[in-house]
Amino acid sequence: MKILFGGDYNPEQWPEEVWKEDYRLFDLAAIDTVTLGVFTWGLTQPAEDVYDFTVLDAVVGRAAAEGRTICLATGTGAHPAWMARAYPEVTRVDFEGRRHAYGTRHHSCPSSPAFRRFSALVAGRIAERYGDVVTAWHVGNEYGGACYCGLCAAGFRDWLRARHGSLDALNDAWYTRFWSHTFGDWDEIEPPSALTEHWRGPDHTAFQGITLDYRRFMSDAMLANFRDEKAAVRAFSDAPVTTNFMGMYQPIDYHRWASDLDFVSWDNYPPDDVSYARMAFTHDLMRGLKGGAPFWLMEQTPSITASRAVNPVKRPGVMRSWSWQAVAHGADAVLFFQMRASRGACEKYHGAVIGHAGRDDTRVFREVAALGAELRDLGGLTVGARTPARVALLFDWDSWWALEMTDGLNRHLRYPEIVLAYHRAVWSAGADLDAVPVTADLGGYDVVLAPALHLLKGDLAARLAEVAARGGTVITTFLSGLVDEHARAYLGDPPLTSLLGVRVDEWDAREPAVVNPVSFADGTAVDARLHFDLITPLTAAVEGTYGADFYAGTAAVTRNEYGGGAAWYVGTVLAQPGVDALVRRALDRHGLAGPYPDVPDLEVAHRVTAGGVPLMFLLNHRDEPVEVVADRDATDLLTGTPVTRGAPLRLAPRDVLILR
Amino acid sequence: MKILFGGDYNPEQWPEEVWKEDYRLFDLAAIDTVTLGVFTWGLTQPAEDVYDFTVLDAVVGRAAAEGRTICLATGTGAHPAWMARAYPEVTRVDFEGRRHAYGTRHHSCPSSPAFRRFSALVAGRIAERYGDVVTAWHVGNEYGGACYCGLCAAGFRDWLRARHGSLDALNDAWYTRFWSHTFGDWDEIEPPSALTEHWRGPDHTAFQGITLDYRRFMSDAMLANFRDEKAAVRAFSDAPVTTNFMGMYQPIDYHRWASDLDFVSWDNYPPDDVSYARMAFTHDLMRGLKGGAPFWLMEQTPSITASRAVNPVKRPGVMRSWSWQAVAHGADAVLFFQMRASRGACEKYHGAVIGHAGRDDTRVFREVAALGAELRDLGGLTVGARTPARVALLFDWDSWWALEMTDGLNRHLRYPEIVLAYHRAVWSAGADLDAVPVTADLGGYDVVLAPALHLLKGDLAARLAEVAARGGTVITTFLSGLVDEHARAYLGDPPLTSLLGVRVDEWDAREPAVVNPVSFADGTAVDARLHFDLITPLTAAVEGTYGADFYAGTAAVTRNEYGGGAAWYVGTVLAQPGVDALVRRALDRHGLAGPYPDVPDLEVAHRVTAGGVPLMFLLNHRDEPVEVVADRDATDLLTGTPVTRGAPLRLAPRDVLILR
Amino acid sequence: MKILFGGDYNPEQWPEEVWKEDYRLFDLAAIDTVTLGVFTWGLTQPAEDVYDFTVLDAVVGRAAAEGRTICLATGTGAHPAWMARAYPEVTRVDFEGRRHAYGTRHHSCPSSPAFRRFSALVAGRIAERYGDVVTAWHVGNEYGGACYCGLCAAGFRDWLRARHGSLDALNDAWYTRFWSHTFGDWDEIEPPSALTEHWRGPDHTAFQGITLDYRRFMSDAMLANFRDEKAAVRAFSDAPVTTNFMGMYQPIDYHRWASDLDFVSWDNYPPDDVSYARMAFTHDLMRGLKGGAPFWLMEQTPSITASRAVNPVKRPGVMRSWSWQAVAHGADAVLFFQMRASRGACEKYHGAVIGHAGRDDTRVFREVAALGAELRDLGGLTVGARTPARVALLFDWDSWWALEMTDGLNRHLRYPEIVLAYHRAVWSAGADLDAVPVTADLGGYDVVLAPALHLLKGDLAARLAEVAARGGTVITTFLSGLVDEHARAYLGDPPLTSLLGVRVDEWDAREPAVVNPVSFADGTAVDARLHFDLITPLTAAVEGTYGADFYAGTAAVTRNEYGGGAAWYVGTVLAQPGVDALVRRALDRHGLAGPYPDVPDLEVAHRVTAGGVPLMFLLNHRDEPVEVVADRDATDLLTGTPVTRGAPLRLAPRDVLILR
Repeated sequence: MKILFGGDYNPEQWPEEVWKEDYRLFDLAAIDTVTLGVFTWGLTQPAEDVYDFTVLDAVVGRAAAEGRTICLATGTGAHPAWMARAYPEVTRVDFEGRRHAYGTRHHSCPSSPAFRRFSALVAGRIAERYGDVVTAWHVGNEYGGACYCGLCAAGFRDWLRARHGSLDALNDAWYTRFWSHTFGDWDEIEPPSALTEHWRGPDHTAFQGITLDYRRFMSDAMLANFRDEKAAVRAFSDAPVTTNFMGMYQPIDYHRWASDLDFVSWDNYPPDDVSYARMAFTHDLMRGLKGGAPFWLMEQTPSITASRAVNPVKRPGVMRSWSWQAVAHGADAVLFFQMRASRGACEKYHGAVIGHAGRDDTRVFREVAALGAELRDLGGLTVGARTPARVALLFDWDSWWALEMTDGLNRHLRYPEIVLAYHRAVWSAGADLDAVPVTADLGGYDVVLAPALHLLKGDLAARLAEVAARGGTVITTFLSGLVDEHARAYLGDPPLTSLLGVRVDEWDAREPAVVNPVSFADGTAVDARLHFDLITPLTAAVEGTYGADFYAGTAAVTRNEYGGGAAWYVGTVLAQPGVDALVRRALDRHGLAGPYPDVPDLEVAHRVTAGGVPLMFLLNHRDEPVEVVADRDATDLLTGTPVTRGAPLRLAPRDVLILR
Repeated sequence: MKILFGGDYNPEQWPEEVWKEDYRLFDLAAIDTVTLGVFTWGLTQPAEDVYDFTVLDAVVGRAAAEGRTICLATGTGAHPAWMARAYPEVTRVDFEGRRHAYGTRHHSCPSSPAFRRFSALVAGRIAERYGDVVTAWHVGNEYGGACYCGLCAAGFRDWLRARHGSLDALNDAWYTRFWSHTFGDWDEIEPPSALTEHWRGPDHTAFQGITLDYRRFMSDAMLANFRDEKAAVRAFSDAPVTTNFMGMYQPIDYHRWASDLDFVSWDNYPPDDVSYARMAFTHDLMRGLKGGAPFWLMEQTPSITASRAVNPVKRPGVMRSWSWQAVAHGADAVLFFQMRASRGACEKYHGAVIGHAGRDDTRVFREVAALGAELRDLGGLTVGARTPARVALLFDWDSWWALEMTDGLNRHLRYPEIVLAYHRAVWSAGADLDAVPVTADLGGYDVVLAPALHLLKGDLAARLAEVAARGGTVITTFLSGLVDEHARAYLGDPPLTSLLGVRVDEWDAREPAVVNPVSFADGTAVDARLHFDLITPLTAAVEGTYGADFYAGTAAVTRNEYGGGAAWYVGTVLAQPGVDALVRRALDRHGLAGPYPDVPDLEVAHRVTAGGVPLMFLLNHRDEPVEVVADRDATDLLTGTPVTRGAPLRLAPRDVLILR
Repeated sequence: MKILFGGDYNPEQWPEEVWKEDYRLFDLAAIDTVTLGVFTWGLTQPAEDVYDFTVLDAVVGRAAAEGRTICLATGTGAHPAWMARAYPEVTRVDFEGRRHAYGTRHHSCPSSPAFRRFSALVAGRIAERYGDVVTAWHVGNEYGGACYCGLCAAGFRDWLRARHGSLDALNDAWYTRFWSHTFGDWDEIEPPSALTEHWRGPDHTAFQGITLDYRRFMSDAMLANFRDEKAAVRAFSDAPVTTNFMGMYQPIDYHRWASDLDFVSWDNYPPDDVSYARMAFTHDLMRGLKGGAPFWLMEQTPSITASRAVNPVKRPGVMRSWSWQAVAHGADAVLFFQMRASRGACEKYHGAVIGHAGRDDTRVFREVAALGAELRDLGGLTVGARTPARVALLFDWDSWWALEMTDGLNRHLRYPEIVLAYHRAVWSAGADLDAVPVTADLGGYDVVLAPALHLLKGDLAARLAEVAARGGTVITTFLSGLVDEHARAYLGDPPLTSLLGVRVDEWDAREPAVVNPVSFADGTAVDARLHFDLITPLTAAVEGTYGADFYAGTAAVTRNEYGGGAAWYVGTVLAQPGVDALVRRALDRHGLAGPYPDVPDLEVAHRVTAGGVPLMFLLNHRDEPVEVVADRDATDLLTGTPVTRGAPLRLAPRDVLILR
């Protein structure tokens, strides 16, 4: 057992003579794992009645013969061209109401009977044929997008019947007396799209209720596709089944999916080349999907991503550093897309371990091979390790959706950015964090963050109050807890009122350029922007006050003693230093900050091995070296260097230490 | 009789126990008027053959029992879901050629036989049932948008036959020998859309003639919808009928509608929170629709509007100040949208007199109640009063449309912005202004402004010349009077040439960042941008000259003595101080400036009551107090405070005086 | 024989009494040539079975009677309205999948049987009727755009069969094993559009292979339309046939068309009013289409273009200067759009020799008449002259398309901008340049520029090597020569490796604001942006090195001695001074710079007359006068002024000299 290393490998694109060279290079780079067959449907089922495993037999057979760990895909990430022609229903109708013809990928209607039948069939055939050599199953690929066709409309109506029971309940949930929208027949309900309830795109809807439900339905419809294939696989193989998630991917509520996956895997394509803090959060979020269990980093690029407008190359050391970061946050596998660069099509310039020239002396290959050696030398110690976090951050797709599709707020507010600011404060302080669903057991956490948790479900209000009641700290912000699961406003005092000890009758919104400075008791002042709650403290103490506008001097940030604990309320978008300061106060109250909270961009993360051994990961994300004082006697697992408590500890630029 | 106070009230969204609390709060706030039933079609006609007035009976009955003035809607602002399913023709086809399914509102095809039949039927039923308790009728809601379906195409052809008489006349009007466009059959004519004559949206058309006619047709088609319902109402009730307009709303030519309304009402949602000057103009424009008769302010928000990307809250005092501004410009009613905030859907965060918490101690409620008390105390003095303006500004939808859909100009030119600059000059000077159609009688005006009046209809050129001939002043600008009603260029000297005394052979256009300073005889210089006429003075005197480019030193602004009066021509987009200065010269020539023309943001407006009593409104729009010297002995009607000519007159920030 | 002068003339839009005035004005301006009938199809064929030449007889007859040179159009630039109604297939389906109805122009599906039949029929009728008075034929108008209908899909499949022979070959060329795209039946192939292979518009395709082929097919499909009409014309007339091209127009590969035209003509509408260097290149590109043969400047505006968002007027002298620039680069005709301004439709404000006022005393008319006199006085000396260029720039539509539709590069890279930078360096130095296809004979050139030549076809790599081998200089850049004709990456060392002597394993991309300074041996440093090759020199010498980022100090620009010559490689987007410097070094090596390479914006161009007389054109593009020293004894042909070698030579702002 060790951390798996390798990635997506598409030898079916190449003549077999190339394969030999590939494996020679894999050996050079200590690559032990290949993900095969992600887009092979057209190859394995070249016509409706023809299955042809000639090529896949060779591909899988060679990988097995070479002794690699095999993650085998069902290959259904793109349907074959013949299927779109024979069954036009398999292609999607987009948000604009247009039926697509054959092309690209991620293009199958999740409600299509043909797609569902054929995808399960091919998945079963593959599982039957290769079950004995496969370590893990990779179903579909990066599920996402949405379809608005008639079949989906019918499926939506069925889903609504099951959810709401009656049209009366649905009309009540969606608040359809507004704008004369009462539905008198299920068949009157159309998917919410540019042709029905929306204008200016998916975030502008006349009724949040229908749009929220459609997103839930669409997430469930694709989950049904996953289940179709998983069931077909399970009939022939007990190997664990996953599909590759995409981190903070808005269209799919991964919390609705997590229990169906045997383990979580995800593709890490950060939006730029400086977002290591963001990535730390995304790893935590993916780890949180299954209660903290380790995950696979299913894809990352060794160098550039091809799909953005501007694609910067990963600087020297960055690929290594980010790979170890994944391990620090719970990865049991470090995999790349892709092993060899395609000759053609839109990903031909996407980074690859082996480039078009096929060389083993490129910078990229050398860095990959060096990492491979490190991973091989480390062995299995971290496999199965857990993160000992006492800080939880509630992440909620429903709140994300609701916040960004609701009129009357500030359209510049983006849920992930708000969440990331609170995560970053914890990350900077060096405290471990679990990003968990609102249904998670909060019993083990000292600090619970619930930024911008607009939509309140179930008994969460009570459970948050319990956190404070037992001495913990809750931190939440503007717009939290204002609407129920149907995005209907709470009437009277909303559920979090007594915990927070404040009332908010109204808010102001301003363009991004407008700054209102918020002053704290310690004399500091930080910029606030975009959204400004006008707060009436009830039982809460005022911690920060606005400095400008007609609400100058009124509360912007409050803290309410509650039971043995406290609840913070932040009524505005504070600049990062403000968020850092108040989160730090909460962490310090519980003694949760790491050893180096004041060293910028020095990441600290902990894991506890299956055998109970605590490990501390230190990652220097800076382009300069950093030196700190060791807080323990330890050994660096990557170099074997002993570390003495109190002695200087030096990390080169982008370097990583794993202290045992 | 007093100024009506209240607004849109949707108790059908609430259980009846809430209604009692509503009326308690209405009493607290002196709310005497409710607009009911704006979106009740789905409720009153839940199926094609079913009318059900149970809820509306209760709603209207309760309002009547509570002694409120009732403005009752026909409820046709959105058709029911069943109608879209049973009659797919009732939904619209958009500019992109897409047939919409059921959703949102403002979605009924104006040419749909089903919509026309059912809307008239339901309007009649409602009028029959509630005619005896209704003070005013509210037909439809915010008519607007456009449809491009086959039924509209057929209606368009009929409309064209009536307008042009023959295809030869139409081909001539549209200039169809250009680009081989001669129509040989009426059925060859398609609505001008993204699929036919347009590219890059509604403002880029290959033929202005067809697009102008389609806009006129669409405006008329919706007017026919209004007439359908009004006729149905009139069969049962003599109460006055209106619909709520939207100020400078481009798609509908309100001048084509005005005579059909018994009184004008409009919804005031300014685009930002600092546009009081713009609002003053919009009030003047709405008042001008029916020859200066008072109007209703049918909707305004008490706090925030929900529909914009960023929705700032109205600062303390702003709602009051803007309400009185409406009265100062002719409002006999001050109404809000909405009385109680919806729990769900896209307007749930739109400002409301009563918020989700249902409190009477919010800032918003207190301000509404205070205004209610002021209005109650003022009584009926202003009701029916008129504005004694001697300045007219010609506003013309045809010119707006033509200017913004024509190639060869500067696409950064926006008709409303040009118009508003000239209005602002008059407003700043404290002179009353009527915004009137080009067909208005100009006999009573000393100064007539016709900025950017691109399209010249009827005998307007002669009537403008008469204004100058009898001693008045005409002010016009670049691009005025160049095309006829079909947007065909005039040949030879265009009709305004002799009045203006200039010739313009060509113009230059520049990006917004390019400035050309225009110098005046008094030594001042102001920036000019975007459009630069190259002017050859014929009989006019040069007032301002360009300072840069190859036309440096040539005329930018001219003034032509004509009869006993004069005509100014402004050949470029002057910065506001330049417009202010030249308009001020014209006003001063006629002694029309108000008492405080040099006090920024102190608005002055006059009304003369039905009994002949002159009133002067003073509104301080600043966040600071302002002090001026009283120009008369008077009494402030809001406080009863006596005012002595020559004594200091102090207005607090956002304060209002009504001097009698 | 003289340079033809005149332009598009549409008397069919006017009553005949206007025609007389037109010809009076033509005489005043020495206008000898009229292009007639460009949009007359609706007039000549008012119904399917009716041809009516009444008006065109009068138009052509009058022009002939007035003794003008007639360029007669077939009139098929827009089909008649009746045709769209009777044959809906003639309208296009757009990239978004929408079938258009009748409207605008450039709207005929190239694959429509109705369009092909009727267009050939009308072209033949016109040729038969007017062949004896016509000097040149103008087929269609500004061919362009694209159609995505079912007929085009069928045509595409036929085209693909002819090109690829088999589906196996096609699948291999398009690399369809990627994303499961293998096509098993020709009918599975759909046009690549927003509904199939594209997202975010025409430049984002999943498969470059299909999109490249569709562009080639579409270019060929319209060429077939041209051939249809040309064949119909040729049946009745031997006069030369052309159509008006549009310079660097991306949708049509003019190199695929050139051999079908009897002579090249093009419409010069630069994107702004300062792009004279760009225009010089476009003239060179158009001249290069037919091996350097002179072309017609078919259209230019005398003052403003109407179609842009902001339309600046041509400054005094600019129209003259730019007209002579066309002659300097190979024009045998200088023609305007348009002779008289339309009264209506979208081009009514487009510049015209005769404006709406019909005056002969406007600035525009006077400048046109003055130019007319100059051209008349010059006579025929330049007609048929050739450009003696020893510098070639390879321009390639395939590379343009491939570069801008490929993921993994920097989306801010624009092929024309890269090309123009290299052209500008040559232009500034005063060297003549031929812009030629990659198939051109390179034997006569000392310097060959191949910037951003991404896609390598045929034996070009070998022919470029020959240039260097025989002592010439080749200059190429980043991203050149990386893919084959199907946009598949070359494997191993790409074909240009030995010529260039460098290896590029990877590149970096950065946002436009990021600058990396490149330092040269002479101590200069210039900014580089957007794309940064990481270069490993093999045999090449390093000429410039990066100054920043992790590749600081590594090669950015190299020069490889090869045979008797050399090959430069520029790995980044150098700012213009950097390109200027290295191109100048190459030119100087071959003694190719003009006499005034260091005088900014003084253009130098040479032609050699049919009789062998060398001419030098000097154009001062500055707003200030410029003075240089004459490099020869000569006579200025426009003024007759003698010029003495060594004496001062003064050019007024915008002035032109033609030295013989």
